[in-house]
Amino acid sequence: MEHLPPNPERLARARQLMAAAAIDLLVIGPSADFRYFTGRPGHLSERLTALVIERDGPPVLVVPKLEAPLYADLESAFQLVVWADGDDPIAHLVTLVQSTGSRAIAVNDQFWSGFLLQLQDRLPERSFRRASPLLRRLRMAKDTGELALLREASRRTDAAWEYFCAHERLTGRTEREVAARLTELLLAQGLHEVAFCIVASGPNGASPHHETGDRVIQPGDPVVIDFGGSYYGYYSDITRTPVAGEPSSDFADAYEAVLEAQQAAFAAMRPGVPCQDVDRAARQILHEHGYGSYFIHRLGHGVGLTVHEDPYLVEGNDEPLEPGMVVSDEPGIYIPGRWGVRIEDLVVVTEDGAERLNSVSRELLRLP
Amino acid sequence: MEHLPPNPERLARARQLMAAAAIDLLVIGPSADFRYFTGRPGHLSERLTALVIERDGPPVLVVPKLEAPLYADLESAFQLVVWADGDDPIAHLVTLVQSTGSRAIAVNDQFWSGFLLQLQDRLPERSFRRASPLLRRLRMAKDTGELALLREASRRTDAAWEYFCAHERLTGRTEREVAARLTELLLAQGLHEVAFCIVASGPNGASPHHETGDRVIQPGDPVVIDFGGSYYGYYSDITRTPVAGEPSSDFADAYEAVLEAQQAAFAAMRPGVPCQDVDRAARQILHEHGYGSYFIHRLGHGVGLTVHEDPYLVEGNDEPLEPGMVVSDEPGIYIPGRWGVRIEDLVVVTEDGAERLNSVSRELLRLP
Repeated sequence: MEHLPPNPERLARARQLMAAAAIDLLVIGPSADFRYFTGRPGHLSERLTALVIERDGPPVLVVPKLEAPLYADLESAFQLVVWADGDDPIAHLVTLVQSTGSRAIAVNDQFWSGFLLQLQDRLPERSFRRASPLLRRLRMAKDTGELALLREASRRTDAAWEYFCAHERLTGRTEREVAARLTELLLAQGLHEVAFCIVASGPNGASPHHETGDRVIQPGDPVVIDFGGSYYGYYSDITRTPVAGEPSSDFADAYEAVLEAQQAAFAAMRPGVPCQDVDRAARQILHEHGYGSYFIHRLGHGVGLTVHEDPYLVEGNDEPLEPGMVVSDEPGIYIPGRWGVRIEDLVVVTEDGAERLNSVSRELLRLP
Repeated sequence: MEHLPPNPERLARARQLMAAAAIDLLVIGPSADFRYFTGRPGHLSERLTALVIERDGPPVLVVPKLEAPLYADLESAFQLVVWADGDDPIAHLVTLVQSTGSRAIAVNDQFWSGFLLQLQDRLPERSFRRASPLLRRLRMAKDTGELALLREASRRTDAAWEYFCAHERLTGRTEREVAARLTELLLAQGLHEVAFCIVASGPNGASPHHETGDRVIQPGDPVVIDFGGSYYGYYSDITRTPVAGEPSSDFADAYEAVLEAQQAAFAAMRPGVPCQDVDRAARQILHEHGYGSYFIHRLGHGVGLTVHEDPYLVEGNDEPLEPGMVVSDEPGIYIPGRWGVRIEDLVVVTEDGAERLNSVSRELLRLP
């Protein structure tokens, strides 16, 4: 697992926001939120691991004894509370809440309900709420170091895709074989993990989150390929839809519409623009081309220490874009029983506009 | 993703237990619990997916629109409630609770707190509790079909290990290289996923959950290798600690103690024996050999649709073993700064005793 050093400045910013939101204690289980503060994801399991941040006082890591060696290097930055198999780890959290006099406790969204319900049961006088309104504030706009890692993750992903396009074939291979080969190429580029690799050929492409399977790719099939991996915990996420051989004219028509929509959304991105306006910019194009009802998902999502995070580019979200936000721009058209097309890049919002993190061609590609 | 058909008998048993526990509604997010009923794990993400089981009435699957195609084959067994990006998915759950008049709602342990806190906020008159006391009752003792898959997962894992021992070397390779090779062999045996592969060499072996890294294995190093994968969702989990070349005499002594402890725990397993007695059987042996303080974790855990599940073989758990339970038997000795040793098999509790699911040698092994 690739770790980064913990970041005390983030802790200080979290405490400022806690004061403003009247939150006394943050309880954060293994997750991207945990990684944001500690530099490592933690091990999510039935053995409780939690980062506990009080408004004052040292941050605490509650960890199981057999995993304590994994946190030994953090002893100068965090107080370690180690519990052993057979102990009651929830009791340690209860003690921390009581000893700090905390009334309002916020937990991260991915914290297990099994743990939260035990805490609520034993601390009936305390209030529990979501920490995400606070944590998203911290994490949405990326700092310089985060942007460098996100750029690097996308650069390596692009390189794997360029190699694939230059050397590999689609026709006659199964979706699974294509995914396995692309996965190899991504790892060869030094990504630490391949997080997902959707290969959805022909009619399977109409299912946006198709589970890559054993279908053999046929001549003329469009193939939706949506893939990404992580670099020091920061993710890439890109989709291209090449064709095995020659595209049908109706597919080529839809492809051009998606390309135009993807560009329109990109052109709409700059600080201050509401997230939903970016979605609308793409949706409007697809509507004008007669494909409006076939674009069945939001335009995009934030990307950072997770593949999907705030902000979401979706109707109903009027939050303005800010410099440093990294989002996906991924319109698509999905025709049930026939095919799908999706074109996706990651985009960083800059001081006065936006910049793509992916630089590989978006033009309609014919592969053997 | 390898799916199994949904199992209506399990649903009927769940409803009997709901009635006995006065639970009106089960809400189960993507997890092993979800897979137990639907035959597939579901996609855990910020887009809410949930299985909702009422005491009467059809079971409901709440799924995001772009993933609805993945559930089309389940329409005869479940009522599908599909929500689109931009909708409020929690509102669908609230409506289900209200329309069924449910007062007592139970959620699975891994359900995200972010969703639970929204439900609690909008349904202040309802009570929420953990579903795990009910779900563990269903899942702890495996049925015939589950046992067949667990056996098969372990058989294939054993075959990969035998190949590794016959053809591979340790000395001079990094932990990461050893893990990559073993992962290849496990996938070549037809496991659908390799869930973990800890390779902890020399002093790293003293950290039971060591993160496999770039340390080069030295002559004489003991190497703790703990690995497992899944077969139709059911997991294997085995540990062996071979030595790269010749072991030191103190390591060989510790190894024999662990081997004896592992056998003592196995011999103690039969229906009716409290879980903690099995842990004690192993711990007693290590204590007698003077290693008591170096066995720093519980003896074992249940294995099925997850790698760690009930029952846990740990001090304080006086629950009796039952036929069909599958548990790990994994004592270990961890000497900080020097080395570790762990020997682990999966064991199924039978009508009158126990049977190992792993058949590869547990004797001290010297590898080149």
